[in-house]
Amino acid sequence: MLDAIADIGRDPRTGGYRRYAWSDADMQLREWFAGEAAVRAMELVEDGNGNQFAWWGSTPSDGGQDALLIGSHLDSVPDGGAYDGPLGVVSSFAAVDRLRAEGFTPKRPIVVGNFADEEGARFGIACAGSQLVTGVLPADKALGLKDRDGLTLAEVMTARGRDPRAVGRTDLLDSIGTFVELHVEQGRSLIHSDAAVGVATAIWPHGRWRLDFCGEANHAGATLMEDRHDPMQAYAATVLAARRLATDASARATFGRLEVEPGGTNAIPSRVRAWLDARAADEGQLDQLVDSLVHQARAAADPDGTTVTLTTESVSPAVEFDVPLRDRLASLLDAPVLPTGAGHDAGVLSPHVPTAMLFVRNPTGVSHSPQEFAEDADCEAGVEALTAVVRDLA
Amino acid sequence: MLDAIADIGRDPRTGGYRRYAWSDADMQLREWFAGEAAVRAMELVEDGNGNQFAWWGSTPSDGGQDALLIGSHLDSVPDGGAYDGPLGVVSSFAAVDRLRAEGFTPKRPIVVGNFADEEGARFGIACAGSQLVTGVLPADKALGLKDRDGLTLAEVMTARGRDPRAVGRTDLLDSIGTFVELHVEQGRSLIHSDAAVGVATAIWPHGRWRLDFCGEANHAGATLMEDRHDPMQAYAATVLAARRLATDASARATFGRLEVEPGGTNAIPSRVRAWLDARAADEGQLDQLVDSLVHQARAAADPDGTTVTLTTESVSPAVEFDVPLRDRLASLLDAPVLPTGAGHDAGVLSPHVPTAMLFVRNPTGVSHSPQEFAEDADCEAGVEALTAVVRDLA
Repeated sequence: MLDAIADIGRDPRTGGYRRYAWSDADMQLREWFAGEAAVRAMELVEDGNGNQFAWWGSTPSDGGQDALLIGSHLDSVPDGGAYDGPLGVVSSFAAVDRLRAEGFTPKRPIVVGNFADEEGARFGIACAGSQLVTGVLPADKALGLKDRDGLTLAEVMTARGRDPRAVGRTDLLDSIGTFVELHVEQGRSLIHSDAAVGVATAIWPHGRWRLDFCGEANHAGATLMEDRHDPMQAYAATVLAARRLATDASARATFGRLEVEPGGTNAIPSRVRAWLDARAADEGQLDQLVDSLVHQARAAADPDGTTVTLTTESVSPAVEFDVPLRDRLASLLDAPVLPTGAGHDAGVLSPHVPTAMLFVRNPTGVSHSPQEFAEDADCEAGVEALTAVVRDLA
Repeated sequence: MLDAIADIGRDPRTGGYRRYAWSDADMQLREWFAGEAAVRAMELVEDGNGNQFAWWGSTPSDGGQDALLIGSHLDSVPDGGAYDGPLGVVSSFAAVDRLRAEGFTPKRPIVVGNFADEEGARFGIACAGSQLVTGVLPADKALGLKDRDGLTLAEVMTARGRDPRAVGRTDLLDSIGTFVELHVEQGRSLIHSDAAVGVATAIWPHGRWRLDFCGEANHAGATLMEDRHDPMQAYAATVLAARRLATDASARATFGRLEVEPGGTNAIPSRVRAWLDARAADEGQLDQLVDSLVHQARAAADPDGTTVTLTTESVSPAVEFDVPLRDRLASLLDAPVLPTGAGHDAGVLSPHVPTAMLFVRNPTGVSHSPQEFAEDADCEAGVEALTAVVRDLA
């Protein structure tokens, strides 16, 4: 199934995927999902937020209750890999196929899900689809989000034939009893555990902050070094400080997106706008990391006569997955348990529904990159594990 | 006259100018120039490179020889100011008006010039118009240059009704005996000299280099700090090193343009592409500055498992302006002499034609910025000085 979608949204230059929410590539993936549901006679329900659900068993409108949701997402980061998201969706369909082949009769509905805009690559908020369905993200805030071309989510959804008035919290969660998301690991823990599949314990708290370093544009040739108010200098000092602070705290801090104004080779910048992604084992440590970083950024900027402004774009609290469910799956699969620094729709649903995650081993630890990979045998083990979980829970 | 063009190509958000070569704004400025020539009954000649010349007296096709060229350029850097370029063009037309009002009869043709694409903001090569007319920049290299949208100069000129086959060296210089460019100062020397107008001695050698910092994209949340190959770190170290090295050498080094790939907030970059603008008092010092910087960049990159590649995009040698002409103007105007770190069309023409530059005081030293400014009284003094120079030389 991964082969069937291998060409959708792939940049020929980098080999990476650019499957942004509601893009042409995303629309093709949605059609592919609808087709996979149709060939299995699973009824497709799309909620007002663009989340797709393929039902085996009675849908809520037919009285279906306490369903077991499995699945993940199909969108990607810029130049993302083939596994982050899609592996969970195709493994879920594959688990359905195996259970049906062995004549399994579920005691509760089984639902394969594709959550909308998990990566937040287009509108800047990760897990938008699951945050909307749970009411964590208010509809009016989401609809006003703009992409880099200045289009709002409301405009983009309207152009794709969706009704923005339907965006927001739904009663979907009332009919879901359990959620299990399978995902490729984004790290190396399973290599160290020598296991193909693991069970998640928790997701670290994480967030995105925008730092605006502001100075004064000037001529790059004629302005003495000592007369400059160049915000690139404080930005650079902050990048180095971020590594020191995150390493010392066993946390994570990354600057992966940047805008420089005016952006001319022969002009000292007037502004460097940088986005910080930071994560830590608990919320206190995360707050301290960001506070210390901003403190060091300002200490670097002050002597240059430049300034630093911090804007919090999103913060996701720590998630501890349901302990009885986690223990049951770890025991069933004889699998190791591990925390993760990556956010997931499972983390968003976890406070509302008993939720668990399965990770499939990543032989390089690389993800969010065209080099992201999982061995076929480990993907197979993931399907086997997910099948066992569904058999046990449904 | 500056008021007449004040709205052309101005970004309403920043207040800065975005007058890039062959853009809509540039075409409007060209029409304005043609109109100013027409109302003065000066014959307009545009060469194959898009340089505009308004002739008072016989054009070369009528046997005009040994002309005195005055003028500058009308294009801008991104978010540039109102004076860099246009002040020289409008002061030249104003000088013509004064000389005519006093009944002056020139003994040689007087030509007001507008050189194409002086800033290089669109195609990456500064002084493209003057480099083409002198043959310093080969036509085929120029025509293949691409802007950020991937359009070549040949395509852009064709779309504006110009014939790319006419691009290249012309015999214009055969009919020019002297060139004097008036320009707003891009620094603070004239403040220290307490003078409204100064005469240039030299232009520092300068160049543009592209540094590609390459590493490995990965997940910003799940990748341990010590497992990363993040090229942003070596870039940041290089920015700080550039300031140290340039300050120690009384030189200039600037990073004002940057591209980050893949550019997602939650992805460690795979590549940071940065453009270095560097200048120094002589070519040996400039080479040493760039060599030391690349050495330090690689020293920062090596321990991270990232790499740095250097590409020289352009290097302009030092320019010493014609000494007899410079001394004559300094004496005539009783003006101080000063070097500059900024490149100009005058620097490109200087090896081919006796050339001089007049600088008009800049009360803040700021240029390449919306805050670029000159006092009206100083602009007036500039016109007065240029008028005196033309009266003396023509």
